[in-house]
Amino acid sequence: MVAPLKVGLAGLGTVGSSVLQLIAQQQLAARCGRSVEVVAVCARDRNRDRGVDLSGMHWFDDPVKLASDSGIDVFVELMGGEGDPAKAAVEAALAAGKSVVTANKALLARHGVALAKLAETNKVALNFEAAVAGGIPIIKALREGFAGNSFARIYGILNGTCNYILTRMEQEKLSFAECLKDAQRLGYAEADPTFDVEGYDTAQKLAILASIAFGTKVDADAIYVEGISSIAPADLIAADELGYRIKLLGVAVKTDTGIEQRVHPTMVPKSSAIAQVMGVTNAVTIDADGIDPITLVGPGAGGLATASSVVADIGDIARGARIAPFGRAVDSLSVAGKAPMQMHEGGYYIRLLAVDKPGTAATIATRLAEQDISLESIVQRHLVTPGAAPQGGTDARTASGPVPVILITYATTEDAVRRAIAAVKADQVISGEPQLIRIEKNR
Amino acid sequence: MVAPLKVGLAGLGTVGSSVLQLIAQQQLAARCGRSVEVVAVCARDRNRDRGVDLSGMHWFDDPVKLASDSGIDVFVELMGGEGDPAKAAVEAALAAGKSVVTANKALLARHGVALAKLAETNKVALNFEAAVAGGIPIIKALREGFAGNSFARIYGILNGTCNYILTRMEQEKLSFAECLKDAQRLGYAEADPTFDVEGYDTAQKLAILASIAFGTKVDADAIYVEGISSIAPADLIAADELGYRIKLLGVAVKTDTGIEQRVHPTMVPKSSAIAQVMGVTNAVTIDADGIDPITLVGPGAGGLATASSVVADIGDIARGARIAPFGRAVDSLSVAGKAPMQMHEGGYYIRLLAVDKPGTAATIATRLAEQDISLESIVQRHLVTPGAAPQGGTDARTASGPVPVILITYATTEDAVRRAIAAVKADQVISGEPQLIRIEKNR
Repeated sequence: MVAPLKVGLAGLGTVGSSVLQLIAQQQLAARCGRSVEVVAVCARDRNRDRGVDLSGMHWFDDPVKLASDSGIDVFVELMGGEGDPAKAAVEAALAAGKSVVTANKALLARHGVALAKLAETNKVALNFEAAVAGGIPIIKALREGFAGNSFARIYGILNGTCNYILTRMEQEKLSFAECLKDAQRLGYAEADPTFDVEGYDTAQKLAILASIAFGTKVDADAIYVEGISSIAPADLIAADELGYRIKLLGVAVKTDTGIEQRVHPTMVPKSSAIAQVMGVTNAVTIDADGIDPITLVGPGAGGLATASSVVADIGDIARGARIAPFGRAVDSLSVAGKAPMQMHEGGYYIRLLAVDKPGTAATIATRLAEQDISLESIVQRHLVTPGAAPQGGTDARTASGPVPVILITYATTEDAVRRAIAAVKADQVISGEPQLIRIEKNR
Repeated sequence: MVAPLKVGLAGLGTVGSSVLQLIAQQQLAARCGRSVEVVAVCARDRNRDRGVDLSGMHWFDDPVKLASDSGIDVFVELMGGEGDPAKAAVEAALAAGKSVVTANKALLARHGVALAKLAETNKVALNFEAAVAGGIPIIKALREGFAGNSFARIYGILNGTCNYILTRMEQEKLSFAECLKDAQRLGYAEADPTFDVEGYDTAQKLAILASIAFGTKVDADAIYVEGISSIAPADLIAADELGYRIKLLGVAVKTDTGIEQRVHPTMVPKSSAIAQVMGVTNAVTIDADGIDPITLVGPGAGGLATASSVVADIGDIARGARIAPFGRAVDSLSVAGKAPMQMHEGGYYIRLLAVDKPGTAATIATRLAEQDISLESIVQRHLVTPGAAPQGGTDARTASGPVPVILITYATTEDAVRRAIAAVKADQVISGEPQLIRIEKNR
């Protein structure tokens, strides 16, 4: 009989409490051939009632002490934050030869390479399934389930807050501000929503996925990031008419010049699996070379869903499985050749307000042609829908005011689009800033 | 430096050739810390050109000899079939202390428990990711990714042929026979399509998933099986109008009386992830206790997709991971309390041809009420669409002939529905056999 695996857990919020609850259900013993016991915990407030039984567990006030305590085999870090005490505690555990399970995307996005090296040196596991897409086993799929494949592209809806807001905006034709307010009321968005709605949360998660898929050193700073606050109901309406939905995607794609990593609002064909994902749900699509896309859809947050991933990570350790944190030996991870965004190739949605005077259409068409941009479709709106004015745009409902025009381009480059727009602006045939949304096609 | 993992591969069809191709790309060495070499192969025809280089590999004419050869560490079985030589070869490999990777669902559905026991006794792995849903890593997700969870229900589209036929029927309003013919022409269906279209292929795969999810002994004979050959375009049209799609699902659900395992055409709400899955694509939804559904979507067949799963299984062995084949020690697997189908609870779609005479509606309503069946909706059709006549039904297009009626019930039991239908038939108020389709709701 193998001795039980002894777990020390730091952080007893919603996820931490759910981890205790799942472990208490004793599924792991039957399914890993070894029982798992939480023997020690650590949290800010010792007296808070968390609805779970902490009796029989040692209480630590200092997570770093817990992490290196000789009474534990595995340290579970659920405190969050890229700095201390999370970082110091994870480092202490790894240095003490203990495997670590963490849900801390910020820590991994910032210090993942160094921590993976520490795990490798000490021959212990560093597992983090819960750090990306909560209850979806995407890390395991990428790291193990496609261990023999090369990848062309990975992309996903990695932030439930943004997908909730975009879903409400689309279905109820509401503004970003209104939906954000509702999301805050329902607890889907923070009081300061910047981290979520401006795409930074998605970028941290994408950095982790890209590292595993492409064997690169995790680097959130290599990512081009654009959020959803500039999306107007008019964009969602136009997308719908043109056969698309708008999602905030994290995309990592192999190009001739390197790994292009980007987070931005994206038009996806309605027929794609990712377009069907509504509300706070997350999803990731894997485009491996030579095979049809594989999409995993599920809860990206929530106590029990996230705890499932944490507990599965503990189960792998109980079973004796050990895998390189980012899927490869740390020294073999390459520095991602950061593909410059101006070289991004793809289709574009452009919504602009054309000044109502002779020659405007010809000028716009000429400027696009000068950049070798071909158009898949042009929609000129006479009826202006609420919220149709692009950011900084004037009110289009005046009698002979500017007219909203929507252009969908065939594949071109970011650089060409930016040049064409600059030229059109210099020509003074449009009013305000045009809206640009990149299109991501099925392969 | 660890010695390379030596693989012997039996079966060099599309999947086998793709396995050789993927292994030759050498991803595994970097991702498992150990290189993998195919050192010996076996197939029926030594002279066929498979587009892969077999030089340097030993050729065996007898797969059983290959399986127990001292030169290999892992035996990969891609011959198929529940009997010999596949069975004898897998047994020989396990008995000789070699890990086995197989894509053979029939073998596992029939002899899975005995083979798992043999693997357990010899302390080797028996991996079979490719046996269910081709390129989707569903076995890994269930067996490892949710190792700490209990499951309420698992269901999926596990047969691409059926989903292709149902998709064509729905989108083009074609008959089953027409779509089957196309599927055969395109190579999606066999000359004898019975195994696919009557649900047996789905049942074998479901048996494997249910065993892992619920810790039961794999038993395809415990499954209620109904195929798609009785589905008419009228059913797909009615489903669409009522907010559903029709999919051939394999469903395993925990009930008060045991594990209910069933394969049948199923109405699923259009809003569900599974309803979006079109064509030959497969998908599996996992309902774990307390968390939102998780759905994996991807290719269920195809050489390279299936080979991905085979190679990932080999990678796990190279990495030294070993897990119980069905996720638990064989002696702890229980005999599934087979939940009897007549106790199945759920909503029903009933399409019948009502005889056009006074009192018919009242009679049908009374018979349903006698069985405590409440109706969610009733649709009576005056215009009969092509193919609307239920199986064995008379032609409804005669002047005052029978009138198609569609009923959607609230949750009731299979038994109640069968009794009500029998009573209505005895009353002679309907013509022909009614069509019954079970409804599977989101939780």
